[in-house]
Amino acid sequence: VKGRGAGHAGRGGVRCLRLEIEYEGTRYAGWQRQPSARTVQGELLKAAEALFGSRVEIGGSGRTDAGVHALAQVAHLRTSGASQLSTRDVEVGLNRSLPHDINVLSVRPAPPTFHARHDALARYYLYQISTRRTAFAKPFVWWVRDRLDVERMRQAAALFAGRRDFRSFSEPAAAETSTIVRVETAEVDTSGDLILFRIGASHFLWKMVRRLAGALVEVGRGHLSANDVRALLEGDSREPAAWTAPPSGLFLERVLYRGDAPPVKRGPAFAVTR
Amino acid sequence: VKGRGAGHAGRGGVRCLRLEIEYEGTRYAGWQRQPSARTVQGELLKAAEALFGSRVEIGGSGRTDAGVHALAQVAHLRTSGASQLSTRDVEVGLNRSLPHDINVLSVRPAPPTFHARHDALARYYLYQISTRRTAFAKPFVWWVRDRLDVERMRQAAALFAGRRDFRSFSEPAAAETSTIVRVETAEVDTSGDLILFRIGASHFLWKMVRRLAGALVEVGRGHLSANDVRALLEGDSREPAAWTAPPSGLFLERVLYRGDAPPVKRGPAFAVTR
Repeated sequence: VKGRGAGHAGRGGVRCLRLEIEYEGTRYAGWQRQPSARTVQGELLKAAEALFGSRVEIGGSGRTDAGVHALAQVAHLRTSGASQLSTRDVEVGLNRSLPHDINVLSVRPAPPTFHARHDALARYYLYQISTRRTAFAKPFVWWVRDRLDVERMRQAAALFAGRRDFRSFSEPAAAETSTIVRVETAEVDTSGDLILFRIGASHFLWKMVRRLAGALVEVGRGHLSANDVRALLEGDSREPAAWTAPPSGLFLERVLYRGDAPPVKRGPAFAVTR
Repeated sequence: VKGRGAGHAGRGGVRCLRLEIEYEGTRYAGWQRQPSARTVQGELLKAAEALFGSRVEIGGSGRTDAGVHALAQVAHLRTSGASQLSTRDVEVGLNRSLPHDINVLSVRPAPPTFHARHDALARYYLYQISTRRTAFAKPFVWWVRDRLDVERMRQAAALFAGRRDFRSFSEPAAAETSTIVRVETAEVDTSGDLILFRIGASHFLWKMVRRLAGALVEVGRGHLSANDVRALLEGDSREPAAWTAPPSGLFLERVLYRGDAPPVKRGPAFAVTR
């Protein structure tokens, strides 16, 4: 097999790496490459093609919308043509040219067929709500001025767990054939002035986490009851669209693959200590 | 006494409030009001004059340079003419019109003669050094790529404590008549990937904390010895100017006045949990 990389003819054929990446989504039009907007995937492709001197394929575990962050997005990086770069060289080389708000946390060898989206077993998201105004955290939280009843939110979040139809909480997307999702964990916790909503599932529908977070805040405000949430889960309502929580509070926290250790309990993604 | 505020005639005369303020300095040309630059004091004055409908005096405990943050800057807000606004009204009213990266934490009544700079007994600064690249913390740390020997830094920081001449570590400023400072505490600590340098003194010289932080990093890199630091403290060198640490890592953490509780041991100002 002859490599396609300029000057990188080699025995290797296809090489695949698993990248773990953190990014602050504030300045980006989301993960997905776009012809005329700054995106995370676009920046990674630019950095990787400069490093390898050839075209590469980069695919994430899923898209994140504009303004949404990742604590550990996973992507495959597939190159054709052997390269002499070690995984450490790739990590350092990518970080050297990536913008400050995208950071490669780790690079590991993966089987040639590894596909970050198809092979992912579960995704975990964190949504951060701040109950106080803060000078530092605006890009990383949704600041809700109203008093929220956390206990009610906790009880409502428990209703999301299990195999449910999230039709009411999603934006119709062409790619989605079903709106049934099996939610593995859905929990509300607090940490200082933050309310943390964590949810894990094999996959998510478009805007689902932000609409669930929005509904939880409505519950916390006393505008929605547990029965209302149950009715939304059983029906087909467009109402939750109006409650869509802002992207700033949302973090893709973890993506799980076969052989990975299960996620451990964590604190907030970002905390101001006072 | 007739109030000067438009429509606020009253019995009060001069009223003074003590404000505690947090801000992210990134977007500002420092604390001090300037005719043609965005500053923290300038934004506060604008918000306060709109709220009181009259001219007010706002003075901070000290200036912070462009890009430097405050976890708890203290300022006096002096108004002439009585106003019916409670301290809570002032806090809420100011925050309503302040930009998102300036936040009034508290408003308390103060004696009419209270002066945030003259009355301050001690200031406490925190400098945050990050030992790893991170997508989230750039505005709040100095990322140092080189391996740092924290134990050496800790020992060097201890040399700053006591009554010392910090001539070598300051930028000459017209207002300063002496370069002698009694440093109360100077400590290096770690928290995850962060190295935290904390220093407290009755007052500080211009750029002093950033030059001390820069010298500590030189020590951590092995470029400076404890004896070199001692020599700098005994001499008059321009060398530390070249090591001035970037403003992003610096936080004014606390200002102490008569009757205040002493500061308690804290963690980092801003932490990414992974």
